[in-house]
Amino acid sequence: MTTQLGQAKKGIITEAMKIVAEKEGLSAEEIRRRVAKGTVVIPANHNHTSLSPEGIGLGLKTKINVNLGISPDCANIEMELAKVQMSLDMKAEAIMDLSNYGQTREFRSRLVDMSTAMIGTVPMYDALGFVGKKLEDITPEEFLGVVEQHAKDGVDFVTVHSGINRETASHFQKTSRITNIVSRGGSLLYAWMDLNGKENPFYEYFDELCNICYKYDVTLSLGDACRPGSLADATDGAQIAELIVLGELTKRAWERNVQVMIEGPGHVPLNEIVANVQLQKKLCHGAPFYVLGPLVTDIAPGYDHITSAIGGAIAAGAGADFLCYVTPAEHLRLPTVDDVREGIIASKIAAHAGDIAKGIPGAADIDLEMSRARQSFDWEKMFSLAIDREKAERYRRESEAKHNDSCTMCGDMCSMRLMNKVINK
Amino acid sequence: MTTQLGQAKKGIITEAMKIVAEKEGLSAEEIRRRVAKGTVVIPANHNHTSLSPEGIGLGLKTKINVNLGISPDCANIEMELAKVQMSLDMKAEAIMDLSNYGQTREFRSRLVDMSTAMIGTVPMYDALGFVGKKLEDITPEEFLGVVEQHAKDGVDFVTVHSGINRETASHFQKTSRITNIVSRGGSLLYAWMDLNGKENPFYEYFDELCNICYKYDVTLSLGDACRPGSLADATDGAQIAELIVLGELTKRAWERNVQVMIEGPGHVPLNEIVANVQLQKKLCHGAPFYVLGPLVTDIAPGYDHITSAIGGAIAAGAGADFLCYVTPAEHLRLPTVDDVREGIIASKIAAHAGDIAKGIPGAADIDLEMSRARQSFDWEKMFSLAIDREKAERYRRESEAKHNDSCTMCGDMCSMRLMNKVINK
Repeated sequence: MTTQLGQAKKGIITEAMKIVAEKEGLSAEEIRRRVAKGTVVIPANHNHTSLSPEGIGLGLKTKINVNLGISPDCANIEMELAKVQMSLDMKAEAIMDLSNYGQTREFRSRLVDMSTAMIGTVPMYDALGFVGKKLEDITPEEFLGVVEQHAKDGVDFVTVHSGINRETASHFQKTSRITNIVSRGGSLLYAWMDLNGKENPFYEYFDELCNICYKYDVTLSLGDACRPGSLADATDGAQIAELIVLGELTKRAWERNVQVMIEGPGHVPLNEIVANVQLQKKLCHGAPFYVLGPLVTDIAPGYDHITSAIGGAIAAGAGADFLCYVTPAEHLRLPTVDDVREGIIASKIAAHAGDIAKGIPGAADIDLEMSRARQSFDWEKMFSLAIDREKAERYRRESEAKHNDSCTMCGDMCSMRLMNKVINK
Repeated sequence: MTTQLGQAKKGIITEAMKIVAEKEGLSAEEIRRRVAKGTVVIPANHNHTSLSPEGIGLGLKTKINVNLGISPDCANIEMELAKVQMSLDMKAEAIMDLSNYGQTREFRSRLVDMSTAMIGTVPMYDALGFVGKKLEDITPEEFLGVVEQHAKDGVDFVTVHSGINRETASHFQKTSRITNIVSRGGSLLYAWMDLNGKENPFYEYFDELCNICYKYDVTLSLGDACRPGSLADATDGAQIAELIVLGELTKRAWERNVQVMIEGPGHVPLNEIVANVQLQKKLCHGAPFYVLGPLVTDIAPGYDHITSAIGGAIAAGAGADFLCYVTPAEHLRLPTVDDVREGIIASKIAAHAGDIAKGIPGAADIDLEMSRARQSFDWEKMFSLAIDREKAERYRRESEAKHNDSCTMCGDMCSMRLMNKVINK
């Protein structure tokens, strides 16, 4: 078996490339070319048979990811599976299983089985439970063993924080950060390195990591351990030093025919977002960019689906390819099913606004249809095009509008109604 | 009596300028200079005695406005006053009373009396009821009479669509717009011009309009009748032709010592927002820019507080000075009290993110404080700094978190907790 990247380099168009081409309205040959260059990835584990493949990267529609998973504070598998089902119903293209406690393998297997969406994991989260040792006693081989288990289980992409090597860590130590390392996987690795006085195993044994990914065609999602956890820490030396290393590792993975995407911030002031995207694209040789937010202010706990929709839309418009959703629960608690729903919708809005901005062919067509439906008061059409039909319909219904050709906002004074009369008189 | 602008030009620092200077952390002389140049307005009607003056414009914090008012579909004065009280409690800097039906004068008077926030109106909405004639029969003198009544009643700024003159209208007729004219005031004027075959009275009698505004120091908020109501119509010939006229009228108002701000879109693709702000600043000689949204996609009815927070943050970051809130009810119904609350919060997030981006001194200080509180797990401090304390506290409480030094998102694996241990060991 080989990988999408390996085949693309040989000039072979795979079944997955054809499906992605169809979804994106591009030729399969164009998809193959981009996969070969590394500017597009198709995360598709050989063992994930229920997958409907999606492409992530240059010139493709921005995709969104939903985080969920079981943990000590929420070990209820059925509730998490309800979130999965809703994510699939709402057409999220990816789900990351961040489980770190309990029957993680059972949950992961059920998730892969039922999911047409891509599945990602952070094997580091699962390491403590899987290996059954204290953090500092886990060996590099054991860390790699967790990755291999996830790969075997059919996971399409894995987040691995290979970029926080001893050199990056030294830059981190020299910066006076407000929020240190907020990446969970990154902080665990930093602690492991600190406790053992050794190099990051995912950096030291990067070739071995690539071998595992190659075998199952797992896409490497190179994590940013030094992503900023506050506006004050954004775009600092530690973050950019790590990004440089991630760019170097990208080339090494590509040489081994392993697909790569790069993870990005985080908390970033609005005026630094475009620079962050441009820097990632340059330093990482055009590899797809997968961002968490970015959140454009720190002061809105309860509304981080909005702060991240602002940042995500700007990032996507500037070239980010994949948005990790953020829910209203961020910084406060595990999300409920409703929080997940709100997070997905906000993220879809951001992705779509970004797609229009970066000129994805056809992206604005649905907006045009909606606007025509508005002008002609075709409420059924408006509902059918709405990103959340249920809420739009409910709002209209609850208003008890007196006219079909207006809503209660303007009532008799509706400008659209008046203009239709004046222009068509 | 004279105006803030008239006094500023004479080198006089008014009481209002001192209050604004104090609020913005700038010198009163600097505020005076900007008011004199027209880059800052202080809407403060002589008759609005309960007002706590605010400045809007260059280098000042971005302000937000709440729309409400009584209408045939919601003639309940008490419910609208509940929205007013909430807007004041949440520190919205401005409230626009869009009442168009019933006891509009009673409502307006109570609003001005109780409100420390600036009050704006669109006199055109009130014209039909005030004059008691059919639209086409209202005379230019009667239209001006409505403005004078509002001015007398203590309104701080009025939206008047003076820019849609016969020439602008001809540009509009030549464009094939999807959503025609979506400005209510603009569509009424367009219909009046069409029915009477006459020039826009607010353009033809602009000097008389200025005289009324001068007398009470009402700030002219020059409305954009041709603001786009869909992404497809954004930044088109009609919109820009009107903006050119608004720029010319700005100079005429300034000559008469009348303060001016300019209203802007609307629905605009993300990648055209910065250009819209730059164009307004250039064509209107640095007059403050007051935007409605902009909404970055048309397809999210029920979530236009989010689509407009995205656009509003980008606009504010690029130099827009004043954001009109948009609620989740936009395009569907009149907002409820809850909708108003959500709209205010989304708008405050956008304004704050924009302030950080455009470098308003001190804007990011609260984010820094919040981030420090996060790193030290000072939940009380986090709640006190949150843009919505109630929701943040409720979310945390509902999660039944087991630890003070983490939330249920990461629980035992909290990166902040781990990093605090590693770094402080």
